[in-house]
Amino acid sequence: MPELRKEPVSGRWVIIASERSARPTDFKSTPQPIKSNFCPFCEGNEAKTPPEIMAYREKGTKANTRGWRVRVVPNKFPALQIEGEQNKRGEGIYDMMNGIGAHEVIIESPKHVLSLTALDNGSVEEVLWCYRDRLIDLKKDKRFVYGLLFKNVGVAAGASLEHSHSQLIVTPIVPQQVINEMAGAETFYKYRGRCLFCDMIQQEIATDSRIVILAENFVAFTPFASRFPFETWILPRTHDSHFENLQKLEIEELANVLKNTLIRLESALEFPPYNYIIHTTPFHINESEYYHWHIEIIPRVINIAGFEWGTGFYINPMPPEKAAKFLRNTGCA
Amino acid sequence: MPELRKEPVSGRWVIIASERSARPTDFKSTPQPIKSNFCPFCEGNEAKTPPEIMAYREKGTKANTRGWRVRVVPNKFPALQIEGEQNKRGEGIYDMMNGIGAHEVIIESPKHVLSLTALDNGSVEEVLWCYRDRLIDLKKDKRFVYGLLFKNVGVAAGASLEHSHSQLIVTPIVPQQVINEMAGAETFYKYRGRCLFCDMIQQEIATDSRIVILAENFVAFTPFASRFPFETWILPRTHDSHFENLQKLEIEELANVLKNTLIRLESALEFPPYNYIIHTTPFHINESEYYHWHIEIIPRVINIAGFEWGTGFYINPMPPEKAAKFLRNTGCA
Repeated sequence: MPELRKEPVSGRWVIIASERSARPTDFKSTPQPIKSNFCPFCEGNEAKTPPEIMAYREKGTKANTRGWRVRVVPNKFPALQIEGEQNKRGEGIYDMMNGIGAHEVIIESPKHVLSLTALDNGSVEEVLWCYRDRLIDLKKDKRFVYGLLFKNVGVAAGASLEHSHSQLIVTPIVPQQVINEMAGAETFYKYRGRCLFCDMIQQEIATDSRIVILAENFVAFTPFASRFPFETWILPRTHDSHFENLQKLEIEELANVLKNTLIRLESALEFPPYNYIIHTTPFHINESEYYHWHIEIIPRVINIAGFEWGTGFYINPMPPEKAAKFLRNTGCA
Repeated sequence: MPELRKEPVSGRWVIIASERSARPTDFKSTPQPIKSNFCPFCEGNEAKTPPEIMAYREKGTKANTRGWRVRVVPNKFPALQIEGEQNKRGEGIYDMMNGIGAHEVIIESPKHVLSLTALDNGSVEEVLWCYRDRLIDLKKDKRFVYGLLFKNVGVAAGASLEHSHSQLIVTPIVPQQVINEMAGAETFYKYRGRCLFCDMIQQEIATDSRIVILAENFVAFTPFASRFPFETWILPRTHDSHFENLQKLEIEELANVLKNTLIRLESALEFPPYNYIIHTTPFHINESEYYHWHIEIIPRVINIAGFEWGTGFYINPMPPEKAAKFLRNTGCA
């Protein structure tokens, strides 16, 4: 059973996943490039993954066989384990609990595509529907408080398979950065009476210098204090605290904006490794006036010195205004 | 002039260092291995660095010539600029200031050594003295509030030259993680009336399962909630808030403990890329009862998925108890 441990100074929780590796020799070699001779995510190889949790599939086809369009399976090497109780406990000054939670993989296509951008818009919409359906399902489990939807693309971004996929980690704690963001947004709300993200969107649209895509219901921009070159955020223009509240028409537009933003990044940076992370409100908090869900896209194009994640102090050599200009002008419709 | 920008949601400051690079093509290729055909840090090549700020050198030798043992020069591509005023200003909801500060390189040996562990103990002591002297000197400049001493080893850890060196970045703001650590430590102090780090040291020594080195005045251990495999902290056993308070005899022992810890990491992980960061109290805070300076060593042996630094939520596949055992048993005196 993995363990969740709390760092007593900063209050950050860490997953100690001892099942995943054991010997120092496992850490000696540099990470290997992704092997692509066999892919367990491709149609026809359904037996090579743990049994599916759900799939959008053609009528009449059976679970764990061909005929699916989007398929969700448990991660074969889960960071957290679904069975069990929290069992919160102390050890002197330290706090810990069982590493319970969900760790699922969302396989975005039965074909061996390397990027979400290779899918047609309807398929991207289904990926977003799948994110939503899994969040709503796991929210019912009262042991859990947060659902972390994210995507790793490329070895340097932590991916171990190249077939386009996303992941969902559901946890019994709220990640540190979401706590910090919520605290910051709440302070602003108490002081100004408005949502900080809504104000930010308004100012970004007025200034226009960091906008990448401005659609009817969504905006993509490079944030004012971007930590990384070409970091890009996508936000709904109308206030909403929960990703899973998305309306059908909004999902159609979001699929288009997300795909278009990724195409621009892939074009400007020649298929960079990247991550995206959906920041949304914890399960146990109802509609929030001050927190605004959004997607953070982080291209992994520079080596982050350890001191940067050791201190939270980032040096970004690419001004976001310049990055936005490149992304706006890059060759796509 | 680089700019310091504040991310309004989390309150984190970022350096936007536009002088460092300009075109998206700069980010297209994967980071290159370090070239070692010419080294500007080697004795005899003093003219290839900016003029030295200080050096410990043999009597009678002149600045920027041979004869030094430890040499401090400005970073050739500084993240912050020493001249100028803060000029704090707003832009709607955003806050920013001029990117003033110091960015210095501490060259640890005139010889082309690749690791601090290749130096004799006396030379390591001089590196620590140099850290202290530079901190004390820059503390006098009332524009600055924090001195960040750190070391990058290996390309994957952000190093661009292999000759053993450290860096010092002095800033007009306190890094986010230090703020968080101080807040956590203060909360504990208010509640328990004791330093959290002192309690942690006491418990670690009593438990013994995560100790790497226990010396008279210093202890090295793998923290209970290690974020990274083989993460190791070194702390003074007696409470002290400021690194620069180190006594002469303590520096002698610290040099030995630091070198010995690094030797164990190099042996167990076969010369891994790593960073270390000295966490100390901000300049403008006098002796603190609750914050305890320490060194955090972070081997860079796994790919950190972007979601981990995008959320502050880490998955560590190596339990610190196991790591400590390997490090204790690894082949060195």
